[in-house]
Amino acid sequence: MNDFLQQLAAIIGPQYILTAAADTAPFTLDWRRRYQGAPLAVALPGSTAEVAELVKLCRARKVAIVPQGGNTSTCGAATPDGSGRQLIVGMRRLRAIRALDGDNNTLTVDAGVTLQEAQQAAEAAGRLFPLALASQGSCQIGGNLSTNAGGVAVLRYGTMRELALGLEVVLPDGRVLDQLQGLRKDTTGLDLKQLFIGAEGQLGLITAATLKLFPLPSAHATAMVGVEDIETAIAWLNRLRHRFGDRLTAFEVMDANCQQVLQRHHPSLMPFSAPWLALIELSDGGDPAELNDALVAWLSAQHMLDGVVAQNETERRKLWTLREEISESQRKDGPSIKHDIAVPTSALPRLVRDCAADLERAFPGVRIVAFGHAGDGNLHYNVSYTRPGNAELFDDEPAVNAIVYDHVYRLDGTLAAEHGVGQLKKDWLVRYKDPLALELMRGIKRALDPDGLMNPGKWL
Amino acid sequence: MNDFLQQLAAIIGPQYILTAAADTAPFTLDWRRRYQGAPLAVALPGSTAEVAELVKLCRARKVAIVPQGGNTSTCGAATPDGSGRQLIVGMRRLRAIRALDGDNNTLTVDAGVTLQEAQQAAEAAGRLFPLALASQGSCQIGGNLSTNAGGVAVLRYGTMRELALGLEVVLPDGRVLDQLQGLRKDTTGLDLKQLFIGAEGQLGLITAATLKLFPLPSAHATAMVGVEDIETAIAWLNRLRHRFGDRLTAFEVMDANCQQVLQRHHPSLMPFSAPWLALIELSDGGDPAELNDALVAWLSAQHMLDGVVAQNETERRKLWTLREEISESQRKDGPSIKHDIAVPTSALPRLVRDCAADLERAFPGVRIVAFGHAGDGNLHYNVSYTRPGNAELFDDEPAVNAIVYDHVYRLDGTLAAEHGVGQLKKDWLVRYKDPLALELMRGIKRALDPDGLMNPGKWL
Repeated sequence: MNDFLQQLAAIIGPQYILTAAADTAPFTLDWRRRYQGAPLAVALPGSTAEVAELVKLCRARKVAIVPQGGNTSTCGAATPDGSGRQLIVGMRRLRAIRALDGDNNTLTVDAGVTLQEAQQAAEAAGRLFPLALASQGSCQIGGNLSTNAGGVAVLRYGTMRELALGLEVVLPDGRVLDQLQGLRKDTTGLDLKQLFIGAEGQLGLITAATLKLFPLPSAHATAMVGVEDIETAIAWLNRLRHRFGDRLTAFEVMDANCQQVLQRHHPSLMPFSAPWLALIELSDGGDPAELNDALVAWLSAQHMLDGVVAQNETERRKLWTLREEISESQRKDGPSIKHDIAVPTSALPRLVRDCAADLERAFPGVRIVAFGHAGDGNLHYNVSYTRPGNAELFDDEPAVNAIVYDHVYRLDGTLAAEHGVGQLKKDWLVRYKDPLALELMRGIKRALDPDGLMNPGKWL
Repeated sequence: MNDFLQQLAAIIGPQYILTAAADTAPFTLDWRRRYQGAPLAVALPGSTAEVAELVKLCRARKVAIVPQGGNTSTCGAATPDGSGRQLIVGMRRLRAIRALDGDNNTLTVDAGVTLQEAQQAAEAAGRLFPLALASQGSCQIGGNLSTNAGGVAVLRYGTMRELALGLEVVLPDGRVLDQLQGLRKDTTGLDLKQLFIGAEGQLGLITAATLKLFPLPSAHATAMVGVEDIETAIAWLNRLRHRFGDRLTAFEVMDANCQQVLQRHHPSLMPFSAPWLALIELSDGGDPAELNDALVAWLSAQHMLDGVVAQNETERRKLWTLREEISESQRKDGPSIKHDIAVPTSALPRLVRDCAADLERAFPGVRIVAFGHAGDGNLHYNVSYTRPGNAELFDDEPAVNAIVYDHVYRLDGTLAAEHGVGQLKKDWLVRYKDPLALELMRGIKRALDPDGLMNPGKWL
């Protein structure tokens, strides 16, 4: 393959081909440390034209490509297999902010721009790019698109799919599909960009995108409230939406076990205790005090177990820190079997109750830590044991998953809400997804990538 | 073909097969009376299962299918050719409201439910289904999906694509793809429903959909204001969005010629006169008086040429009637060459100025009537003559279109914003759309409909 790498070097420059283990290490282990790949090399092209030439070369030489953004996939979607024959294509050198059109509220960026850089570019122009994730300092726009990323602002602004107006994609044959348009309406034919969003790099390589921007809110009102149960949280959600419409930008929930995890690791931040907590945020243009008053007035007419409204930006940041620290605090408590599930919001109470009962029956003493985006019906649902001496947690993973996913699908839900499928859930996808849908997806894959060179070994 | 119709009758019942000219007439002429088709017959199946059997029969007998909803396409997308060999499949008997999930804010309906019936079902549950079109009493949900319909509320709620969470589709081979889910987040594979939205029935037959609902606003504040030029209108739009966020639910504009047309046919309704008028509407939960006060306060700080804020529902309806009567008033003035174009909002001023100048140069005395959804960069741009004795208006249509579309594409716009392509614009699509994009679309068409039996003769 030396000859291949020489040809590749002629396209992107030898200094952008990494082969030494020390150099490739940051690219070969996935974020959750479950998948260790062994690549042919890591290639770091510097432009769309270089990506296109690289893909043409790979096609001619039948070398498989594993596209990689910030390497923050939680499902191993950007990690190669162990064959030593797949080429990781890292996008970090494609990092131009190509254009910002204030009057059109659009931002066009290279795929390797981090989410945080995109947010900052928008903010510098008095605009908001609303996608917000824990990994925003590392994850890249191309990866956000490829997983159809979600996060804490989907309730108001939608997932990455809804935030993308145009894409530039290098197809599996090396041709460049330029659909970098900034239009809110366009019915000229099929909306091809939809194919590449959420495809985890299996149909082509996204090199740039035109994204929707929104006015930068001048006011936030943020509260943490305790409620009796998840039904009550859902009722609150709907009443808040009815009263405040899309000023309701976040409605996050956490169960009692989740609160205990936070209390253990952030005792000073965590004075709350209730069967469920909801983190509520309103955003708006106009006067902050007015928005805060409106939220306080609304809350004072509700029955709640516990609660606080942030009085200033410091208090607001504290409430959000709690939400953001959940994953890290959990990690300190040891491993857990993680699920990123969604059901219709109306079905959340049944899911929470029935699934816990079944898990407890099958695995007495099991501990469930559930939190997430109730407004989207999306829970991060983590299962671990409190039984003493249980060292073989992950031996039970398939049985735990089957119980959880059976409940999810009985309620018309999904086993991958916002984290994607990657390697982690590909067998589960085949088990639960409609075979006809899978057949259609594979037909599209064959039509676009007949040699199967784009991110093979994942779910397509 | 008698034998085919007998087999068809065995599936859907003989009384639901129309062949007499008097019976098929309402299905064979398009809404704008430009396309007269001659079908084999009109079939009116009564369930998804019947549609599936019908499609299997058509495939076995190689009979082409033209799906039709309310027959309100403005592009001839639902009209068969003149061969007498295509079967119109009307969806009007699929009219069940299948489910309304209030807590999940979703509505599941058959494809033949009219838009107005869907709106009413939502309203009866205290919810809003926000798609709103002039033809809403006739057009059907299946047609709205197949054209990715837009309308006056896209600024806030998005097009039909953004309002659809799940679809049920009969594929060209007669199998039923059931993706009637009501999830806000799902990353299990490719989002197949996106293929069928906006495909104008060329990839399959949509039989049902799960749609997003929103809280029913309790407050509206509506104003009509006059401004100097389209630049000022766009500046207003952005300031309004900055102040009111998504409470700004409509921002419609009309030019001076458009106002004259309305003055001629609705003199009592139309006291306004300005280079451009903007119809502004805010919606919200909460107190109507408060919202009205906020709009009045904001407007009083602006410079405007003319303006009125509706003081009650009657005045509000009057302002909207003006907007809704434009098309009908225009029709009374005689034919015009119609365009449904969009550009980035920031490019609207250039489009308006440069295109008019070029048209005037090429066709002295030409009259442009422009109005539409400025918030989406979408203008309905109608060209007619005021020259006396000009009887051959449509002889110049290709030259007029070329001038308009050249400007639109120079500004990264689209020749079909929300009305689709159908028969009317299929040659223009080939001329202006990226050949690579067209090639990919045709590859997908071949993969799904290898016999080319779904709505042939349109653009795919």
